[in-house]
Amino acid sequence: MISWKNLDTLQAFEGLSALKDRVNLPAAMAGEGGAARVAKYSVPMAAGLCYNYAAKAVDDEVLAALCALAKEAQLTEKYEALLNGEVINTGEKRRVLHQLTRGQQAGSVVVDGVDKREFYLAQQKKAAEFANRVHAGEITNAAGEKFTTVVQIGIGGSDLGPRAMYLALEQWAKQNGCFKMEARFISNVDPDDAAGVIKGIDMAHSLFVLVSKSGTTLETLTNETFVKNALKDAGLDPSRHMVAVTSETSPLAKSSDYLAAFFMDDYIGGRYSSTSCVGGAVLSLAFGPEVFQRFLDGAAQEDALAKEPDPLKNPALLDALIGVYERNVQLWPATAVLPYSQALSRFPAHLQQLDMESNGKSVNRFGEPVDYVTGQVIFGEPGTNGQHSFYQLLHQGTDIVPLQFVGFRKNQAGMDLDIQGSTSQQKLCANVAAQIMAFACGKEDENPNKAFAGGRPSSIIIGDQLTPESLGALLSHFENKVMFQGYCWNLNSFDQEGVQLGKVLAKRVLAHDTDGALKAYAELLDI
Amino acid sequence: MISWKNLDTLQAFEGLSALKDRVNLPAAMAGEGGAARVAKYSVPMAAGLCYNYAAKAVDDEVLAALCALAKEAQLTEKYEALLNGEVINTGEKRRVLHQLTRGQQAGSVVVDGVDKREFYLAQQKKAAEFANRVHAGEITNAAGEKFTTVVQIGIGGSDLGPRAMYLALEQWAKQNGCFKMEARFISNVDPDDAAGVIKGIDMAHSLFVLVSKSGTTLETLTNETFVKNALKDAGLDPSRHMVAVTSETSPLAKSSDYLAAFFMDDYIGGRYSSTSCVGGAVLSLAFGPEVFQRFLDGAAQEDALAKEPDPLKNPALLDALIGVYERNVQLWPATAVLPYSQALSRFPAHLQQLDMESNGKSVNRFGEPVDYVTGQVIFGEPGTNGQHSFYQLLHQGTDIVPLQFVGFRKNQAGMDLDIQGSTSQQKLCANVAAQIMAFACGKEDENPNKAFAGGRPSSIIIGDQLTPESLGALLSHFENKVMFQGYCWNLNSFDQEGVQLGKVLAKRVLAHDTDGALKAYAELLDI
Repeated sequence: MISWKNLDTLQAFEGLSALKDRVNLPAAMAGEGGAARVAKYSVPMAAGLCYNYAAKAVDDEVLAALCALAKEAQLTEKYEALLNGEVINTGEKRRVLHQLTRGQQAGSVVVDGVDKREFYLAQQKKAAEFANRVHAGEITNAAGEKFTTVVQIGIGGSDLGPRAMYLALEQWAKQNGCFKMEARFISNVDPDDAAGVIKGIDMAHSLFVLVSKSGTTLETLTNETFVKNALKDAGLDPSRHMVAVTSETSPLAKSSDYLAAFFMDDYIGGRYSSTSCVGGAVLSLAFGPEVFQRFLDGAAQEDALAKEPDPLKNPALLDALIGVYERNVQLWPATAVLPYSQALSRFPAHLQQLDMESNGKSVNRFGEPVDYVTGQVIFGEPGTNGQHSFYQLLHQGTDIVPLQFVGFRKNQAGMDLDIQGSTSQQKLCANVAAQIMAFACGKEDENPNKAFAGGRPSSIIIGDQLTPESLGALLSHFENKVMFQGYCWNLNSFDQEGVQLGKVLAKRVLAHDTDGALKAYAELLDI
Repeated sequence: MISWKNLDTLQAFEGLSALKDRVNLPAAMAGEGGAARVAKYSVPMAAGLCYNYAAKAVDDEVLAALCALAKEAQLTEKYEALLNGEVINTGEKRRVLHQLTRGQQAGSVVVDGVDKREFYLAQQKKAAEFANRVHAGEITNAAGEKFTTVVQIGIGGSDLGPRAMYLALEQWAKQNGCFKMEARFISNVDPDDAAGVIKGIDMAHSLFVLVSKSGTTLETLTNETFVKNALKDAGLDPSRHMVAVTSETSPLAKSSDYLAAFFMDDYIGGRYSSTSCVGGAVLSLAFGPEVFQRFLDGAAQEDALAKEPDPLKNPALLDALIGVYERNVQLWPATAVLPYSQALSRFPAHLQQLDMESNGKSVNRFGEPVDYVTGQVIFGEPGTNGQHSFYQLLHQGTDIVPLQFVGFRKNQAGMDLDIQGSTSQQKLCANVAAQIMAFACGKEDENPNKAFAGGRPSSIIIGDQLTPESLGALLSHFENKVMFQGYCWNLNSFDQEGVQLGKVLAKRVLAHDTDGALKAYAELLDI
């Protein structure tokens, strides 16, 4: 029997709270004791990744308290309930089924007579067949010429995740002979976004993927019209250049305006939709369906690991629990995500949505205000770039910001060279190792301006190479981490009512139905 | 006589601290009182911009306390001292002269017999002439063909600022007939960064701008060799394809490896170097020197406004003071920068460096620990994209995050269309107006999940269009804001000792001179 309780009502949280500031991280990470932590505090993930938390401010006692919390809060039982199709999204009274898009979990969920696993698989198959026909030159423009570019039109979850995944695999695909089409993305209602993309591509050989679950997203429909007009201006027939990714009940679903339509449904939240057709159509077109399938396989393997009840063997669960310790006991307000991989340049922006939109909430799943802090600010840029930028504050600022590193032993593009006795890839890896230690241990100095207090905790996910499988595992890890943290905080991590008020007010501005300050701002902006 | 004092020793700070939680923002912004605030709480900036702080949690009494703080802390006197060439960067014992690169301030500073204003102007002129000769086809590749692409190789301040400025003006330049060359950027030591850029450009028609003040930056020199090898592999002579931006004393300065060298010096910090040759070479090549000059003019005009002692007439100073109130009295730990302009997509990343690297410090300018919080986490993405992402936390999360909006009445690319009675540009502007009010006033609702507490403060900088002048003014505004906050906190905002330790440790890893945890991490990463 699952019970949903606020974090501050759990006995285990009381025990955890007693362990504030328990670990002296500079001391713990010094000398051979530090080396022993690196060996011990590591959990295998899927696709050859591992989650190493040696440089987190935890020890066996803190970990025991976290294990007690996981048990009392029934975290893996709640994950199983989600997998079994219970209505986890209480606000919108919906199931949460994005894991089924990976097609790998044993069971399925039947809703209104529809086997959802089969439904998502069928849509994926449809998108795969479509992509194969485009690549084979069976689906072409009106002149019978092959499409060379795919442009995703979508915003939020229909943009950030697929865009981050495309960038993550672009160089890998080029190097491995499976790069099929360039991809571009239009998201912002700012007309300069669409204009910039349109001016930079060959419209006659471009295929547009319109993504809106509801079929009513203002930005996306506006940009669709923008693109259709540009196609017409170029003497092209828009219906020969567009596909839709939407829900079966949306106005876009049966329209003759599209070459094809691929479906998701209400059980796939936008920020969890990269493994559905929302990511599947554009990524299958860009890299081929086999690459997308490998991405799904990696995610599915990581999803399976998240069922393990022992947090010390469950990387997503452990990462989530350490985060709760940092947020609710240590009271640190932000977390930086720092991938040492240029290919992951937009992965932090995706995680920013995933985490902040899921857990940036003040009421629990029953609508009652909570008396503790929940989701935190997430930000990040790739290393080594960040080292020459905001790391100054991370090292010597007055606030402690926990860090989440990601690093790979091999690069993707297969171009590298030895300079002064090391390759660029080795320099990259040396830097991430160095940063972990600099943050953890600091350095004394007679000049206080050059001294580092240390005690700044980090974890690192290490892999052999960023591939479709390891990218899928990485994505799943963070999705499940966010889910587990939402359970700890007793939140509904799957709705986003906080985005509604702005929409309502923007409509009033456009209808000139305003007064007071809103009217004054509208006038300042010439609306 | 200027005296440098810690914030918590100032009488005015005591007065300000007594005003915690003074303003009920939802009430203040409601009804006609809100409209009156929008009219009243606005300061003109240069280039037609204005800084509107109506939706900040301030009132006349808070503002009076901020004015007292500005006076007691001698903020504009300290700015004048900087302009006059005093050694403001106490850590490195250097002057801070980036304002002179704008070439517009009345006086100059003579160092060791060199008039620095003339020096920076001469370098800018040299870069302008070089760019003109490239555009005229007088400087070409070995085959006598014109260069079409410019690639900046640099990291940190040599990357983020120039890249953000290029993206900010790309569409504007295309629309206004002054787009000369495509620009690309290589920064990360990850070899996939350089590989991705190299694979995407036509090497034979590309000109590379190598930017390193010291001439010793690991990432930049590595990427230079990477690029030179690629040029040689393509049968090209690297010395026909590269220019250097560096200091006169650097090993790059007189090398025959470059077509030309343009100089800055130790008085131009990396993150303040966009208006020096660091930005000037690449931006003059991309858009022509006239556009770069207009950018400098906008910055110079805004610099001049920052001299005004009355904070209510000095937008950078006022913005800084309100930020100190939010940080040190309200104790809010982060600020989001949210430009409603796709062209400013990387502007938040530049501000992240500018702010966090300048003021992310724990010791004052005399090396003594301070007892208050200083620089904060800065993050952001363009609206409306952010609305579909992390705004959920901003609206309904447990932490309050102050917001800095930017918006323009007109778009850049000149493509727009009317859909359902409004243009995309109007929809964009309606959204930013709506968001300000949603954050400030919130909304009651019977369903607590759909209720918004409001009380989330924001300011907005509004302009007519993002042009070279208004971009320059915007850049200067934030540079001077950060400087004034550094003065409030009694920091040296112009060094960055926090980036050093990681460099030292990375060298040890590469030399295999490690033990303990550092060695263990290096082994995990196969170094």
